[in-house]
Amino acid sequence: MNQTFDLLKAASTQAVRAQIRSGEYCGHTAGIGGKTLQANLAILPASYALDFMRFCQRNPKPCPLVGVSDTGNPILHTLGADIDIRTDVPAYYVYRDGVLAETIHDLQQIWQDDFVVFALGCSFTFEHAVQQAGIDLWHIQNNTTVPMFATNIATTPAGPFQGPMVVSMRAVPDDQVAQVAEISRQFPMAHGGPVHWGDPAQIGIANINAPDWGDPAPVPEGTTPMFWACGVTPQAAIMHAKPPICITHKPGHMLITDVADDAETPIYQPTKIPTGD
Amino acid sequence: MNQTFDLLKAASTQAVRAQIRSGEYCGHTAGIGGKTLQANLAILPASYALDFMRFCQRNPKPCPLVGVSDTGNPILHTLGADIDIRTDVPAYYVYRDGVLAETIHDLQQIWQDDFVVFALGCSFTFEHAVQQAGIDLWHIQNNTTVPMFATNIATTPAGPFQGPMVVSMRAVPDDQVAQVAEISRQFPMAHGGPVHWGDPAQIGIANINAPDWGDPAPVPEGTTPMFWACGVTPQAAIMHAKPPICITHKPGHMLITDVADDAETPIYQPTKIPTGD
Repeated sequence: MNQTFDLLKAASTQAVRAQIRSGEYCGHTAGIGGKTLQANLAILPASYALDFMRFCQRNPKPCPLVGVSDTGNPILHTLGADIDIRTDVPAYYVYRDGVLAETIHDLQQIWQDDFVVFALGCSFTFEHAVQQAGIDLWHIQNNTTVPMFATNIATTPAGPFQGPMVVSMRAVPDDQVAQVAEISRQFPMAHGGPVHWGDPAQIGIANINAPDWGDPAPVPEGTTPMFWACGVTPQAAIMHAKPPICITHKPGHMLITDVADDAETPIYQPTKIPTGD
Repeated sequence: MNQTFDLLKAASTQAVRAQIRSGEYCGHTAGIGGKTLQANLAILPASYALDFMRFCQRNPKPCPLVGVSDTGNPILHTLGADIDIRTDVPAYYVYRDGVLAETIHDLQQIWQDDFVVFALGCSFTFEHAVQQAGIDLWHIQNNTTVPMFATNIATTPAGPFQGPMVVSMRAVPDDQVAQVAEISRQFPMAHGGPVHWGDPAQIGIANINAPDWGDPAPVPEGTTPMFWACGVTPQAAIMHAKPPICITHKPGHMLITDVADDAETPIYQPTKIPTGD
């Protein structure tokens, strides 16, 4: 698998998706696809689609909507040359009535004609930019999942979708907080600027060492915990809404698009296909 | 009216909307509301709402979605303290089957329980920033409407919504083109960066002196015509879709929100109500 992974890191986005589609690769996507936008996934029946889209519009920092399919159409033509969402994500979670029911690698057997696909920007984009600026991120260096916390910040509800904002935490050296905030603000499609930094209790986090999702990460002396709106927020809202069926990506196993991660808008331009770098 | 207008320019956004709501003011909104976001308006029956929202998501430069109501609810709680869309816009156009049927100042008599309200960012925001940078805009100095043109750039369709991108044109001194492009890119909620500059024929404009909407404006020697995606684009797409009823603002007569025009997201924060300046 490591050999495959190294090959994938150098491959074009289309070649990567072909490997995923064929079932040859079903691992995580961190570091794959070069400087292209990766996306969180939510698939819902059409009867929930308008309310979910309103939820995303009203909560743009946790839910930066970068693509929406036509009803029943698995092809995401605004995000890439040939994206078939039934096969092009390495691993999917299937929720039934708001409860995780199974993990699968292909949706062809369970695809429904009333499905609407939503793609949401993810934090990989701004993490990449922070690292490019020479600032290390502990969870990446230590190959763990970023710690995530439910907060006392409420999302703005839409229909049955509601719940707390979930945030991810990264500890940053005190003198680089302003720089990291500024870098992340440049990526509104990847959660934008931080929603909070400093005292975790102010946003309802009782124990910084006990995340609700992901792995713990240290906050050493001389660093400040910084918090960003997180793509788990819509998953929590979907669990609250309890639709009969909902499909998401498995965390870390994202959709790799053909859109450059610094594009002004998340719209695929056929003449500008990025390649791995 | 001029006395009222001068008073309004100094008033808070809530005071302005109260004047509009009471019927005391029904004029244009350019220069009113201080540094707050103004918005284009489209109201559609719920059966068209998901497709229209997809159209906006796929065409973010002409259609920057800044607010969406709940179905049947005229209160836009994400854009301000007390916005009732039935009364708080100075003048409305009513389209029936895609044809302009009447201009009215109050929607209370024709409001429907299945209406969904869409608010879209408008160019007033970046024009304000360009002028702040000391760059004059001819149509504002001469109190005319900016010239607008249908182009050969197609929008990405969604359901029945489709049509050409409409652009607005502003002639900018050659040596300020880069600066103006950079300023406007900072306002993705106000159409973002230009879609083209230079030769009008490249985007299908045969005669720069004969706009399809608005008033002609000169392109003097030493200036470059710059073109931005324009809020008339969704109106053209709606006319193509021919819904039984659709309501828009009358051009220039915008919704004044309580969101700061440089806010990171178009979400009203009750603790940060901007005032006129």
